[in-house]
Formats: sequence, C-alpha cells, structure tokens
Amino acid sequence: MTKRKLETCFSPALYVPEDCVDSIVIIIDVLRASSSICTAFENGATEIIPVEDIVKAKEYKSKGYLVAAERDGFVLDFADFGNSPFNFTKEKVEGKTIVYSTTNGTGIIKLASSSHMTVIGSFLNISALSEWLINQERDVMLFCAGWKNKFNIEDTICAGAIAEKLMKSGFYTSICDSTMAGMDLWSIARNDLHRYVKKIAQRNRLKDKGLDDCIEFCLTPDFTKKIPVLNNGVLIDHSV
Amino acid sequence: MTKRKLETCFSPALYVPEDCVDSIVIIIDVLRASSSICTAFENGATEIIPVEDIVKAKEYKSKGYLVAAERDGFVLDFADFGNSPFNFTKEKVEGKTIVYSTTNGTGIIKLASSSHMTVIGSFLNISALSEWLINQERDVMLFCAGWKNKFNIEDTICAGAIAEKLMKSGFYTSICDSTMAGMDLWSIARNDLHRYVKKIAQRNRLKDKGLDDCIEFCLTPDFTKKIPVLNNGVLIDHSV
Repeated sequence: MTKRKLETCFSPALYVPEDCVDSIVIIIDVLRASSSICTAFENGATEIIPVEDIVKAKEYKSKGYLVAAERDGFVLDFADFGNSPFNFTKEKVEGKTIVYSTTNGTGIIKLASSSHMTVIGSFLNISALSEWLINQERDVMLFCAGWKNKFNIEDTICAGAIAEKLMKSGFYTSICDSTMAGMDLWSIARNDLHRYVKKIAQRNRLKDKGLDDCIEFCLTPDFTKKIPVLNNGVLIDHSV
Repeated sequence: MTKRKLETCFSPALYVPEDCVDSIVIIIDVLRASSSICTAFENGATEIIPVEDIVKAKEYKSKGYLVAAERDGFVLDFADFGNSPFNFTKEKVEGKTIVYSTTNGTGIIKLASSSHMTVIGSFLNISALSEWLINQERDVMLFCAGWKNKFNIEDTICAGAIAEKLMKSGFYTSICDSTMAGMDLWSIARNDLHRYVKKIAQRNRLKDKGLDDCIEFCLTPDFTKKIPVLNNGVLIDHSV
C-alpha cells in the first residue's frame, strides 16, 4: 500500500498552490473563521459564500443576503454581524445562505481553491473531519491561516492534533518538519489547552478588542460533525 | 526599563526587512552554513565574503581567493570545497579570506543586510552569542534560514535555545508565537537532541547525498566564542 503524504503549511506566504493540486487542503483558522464556519453549519446554515472583496460583500447585502463581514476584528458597517462563532446562532442562520468575508480566512480559501478539494477544519469538527479524511484516498495538506502571513500557535496545534489522528491511522507518511513541529507542540498544549493558549499573540489581539470571549469555545473538540467543503466557490456540508 | 523585543522568523518568505531596520538579526542555518561560518572563524579565517551569485564566486576564484561554493549539497566544480564545516580546517583557512556561496545561506544574509546588524548564530557559538547579544541594547530577530522557504526543525530549535537564554536574562519581552513555539520545541528536543534531529527532513536530504557526517558536530554547543558579524558586505569576527 502506498501511503498518503501528510504535510503542514504555516502561512499563506509559504503555500505553493501547484504542490497541492492533487491534495485535500484543510483550512485551519481557529480564531475565528474556521470555528465560525463549522458553527454556522452545525446551526443549520445551508451554504456559505466566502467573499474576499468588501465591495462584493456589500453587493450581496443589497440583494438581501445575510452577510458576516469583518476586518481586523471590526464588524463592517453594512454587515449583519462579524466573525465570532457566537453570532452564527440557529435563530439567525438556520436554512440560510451566508455571505462571509474576514481579514484572513476568505483570502486563504481562495488561495487553496486550486487544490483537489478545500475543506474547513477546526477543533470543533476535529474527530469527524479526521475520520472523513481517512476515508478519502488522498494526500493531505494542513493549511494554517496564521495571522497576516505570520506563524501562529492556535492553528499549528490544531494542525498537530489532526496530524496525530491521521498518523495513528497508519495510512499516512510525513517527512515534513512543519507536521512534526505541529504534533510536538500539540503534545505540550494538550495537557492544559486553555492555559497554553493564554500565551498566544492572537488572544492578546482579540482581548484588546473585547473579542476573546469565544476562545474557550473555539478550543472545544467535537462540537459538530459537519465537514464544510468548497464546491464551485461555495461552502457546503459534506458530512451528509 | 523598556524591554527589548525578541522575535523569530521561520522562513525567508516570512521575513519583512522593514520591520528589522533597528534590530540585530541572527541568521540561523544550522545545517550547514551558520555552522561552517562559525567553524571557519574558530579555525582562523580572517574574513568571509558571502556571495549569492555563482558567476561572481567564479570571478573571485580566478582572482586567487579561496572559494567555498555549493548548490543543493553539490560542490561547484570551480570551488575549493563545499559547505561542510569539516572543510574549514585550520590548515586550509587560517589567515585567509574565504568567498562563500551556498543554496540558502548567502541569499538570506543579503536579505537581512538592511537590519541594524546581521550576525551568524548556531549551536557552535550559542553561549558566546547570547552573552554578546545581552550586552547590546537592541531588539533581536532570530531569522531561521529554513530550506527553500520551508520551515525547518533544526534552525527552529536553535532559535528556541537562543531565545531561552535571552528571555532568562530578563532584558527581553516577546509576544511572538514563533518564539514561543521555538522555545517549546527546544524544551522537547534538548532531552535527546541527536535522537530528535534524526526525524528531520534536512537530515534525510543530507543522508541521501552522504553529507550527514557533520550533523552531530553542528549540534555541539559552544565549540567557539566567535561572533561573525556582517560589515560592509563582509563577515568578520566581532568577539575580539
């Protein structure tokens, strides 16, 4: 049996689209895009349209769509709400198509879209996602969103936690230093995840803006079994 | 007392020169450029001229300079020797100016050259370098060379080991996730460095070419007290 290749990328600035055309790429943006998208599907959203451009997001709004849009943690004035997973409640999103635009996450989804398949991963769907991946016969790239091209801890430990599950299955091989680093950092973080994450830079950025209330939730494993997959530019749930 | 800022960068693709104009930048390319440069100075080299361009390196050779030049682990045909620290023996380098061109290292030295000061760091000079840094009143950027823009483990744990020494001094502060990750990976690696490094991708690359004989040496702390500093495009020892 040829083993599938498992790799990790720590930043959009390090991502090479041509290397991933045959791979499943998992977008990991724990604080907060990936977590919000998983939450939205769990609460009954039918589709999420990731939109990079603010003007385009505004156009969708004028057509009557529900729009979640923020830049640097601030909700855009025309949007219905911002990028906290707590916004994506059942009352607001059930049965709806959501247009979604964030500082970091949406650009990265576009960057990964030339891969075989682009999927959203977070702690919230970690077990379901890992089992689903094991059932696909494909190389996997764990693509950490980082923060404005910088490496970040929360995405890396989530990648490490997914990598650990995949490696345990026996179907994958990895000679990627980033994957090894992710698994090792996860082996430290897992012992006291909330204390560990207290140290991270993004927590401080969110705290400054009073947006750190969702961090504990974003670190919760297995809140949902949804598998958000990009399909012709639109995210839909692939778990069903 | 205002604390000095300590940051780490994992790849040339993530390096932002404008952010480092007032910082001391430490170039870390453990396998093998940083280690070879430190060894050359310990063995009496007077100057090292880093040269990015192969044509330029060849020109220097025709002028009678001692030239160390390799690409992807292969010694260039006109060069005196390649990039193993074992080449830079006292017999060969004492009292000499060396022209030096490697796949990764020399380009990175140029990239960092707009900083306040560019210095070569490795396990071989780790304690002397850290003490010297503590005596400078400057922000520090630990710049890992990586491998062809990819993150690598050996440079990261060396950065983590330096960061640990600097943070212990009490003069530095860091809200950089990369620095935190480096220190945490170092905390795992230090327990059995040689076993840990066995896992890394660069080791496999060197092994394939029979160039892995120097790895144990490159992980040796405090082989030298030399501090190679870039001065008008030329590396000289700053320890004296």
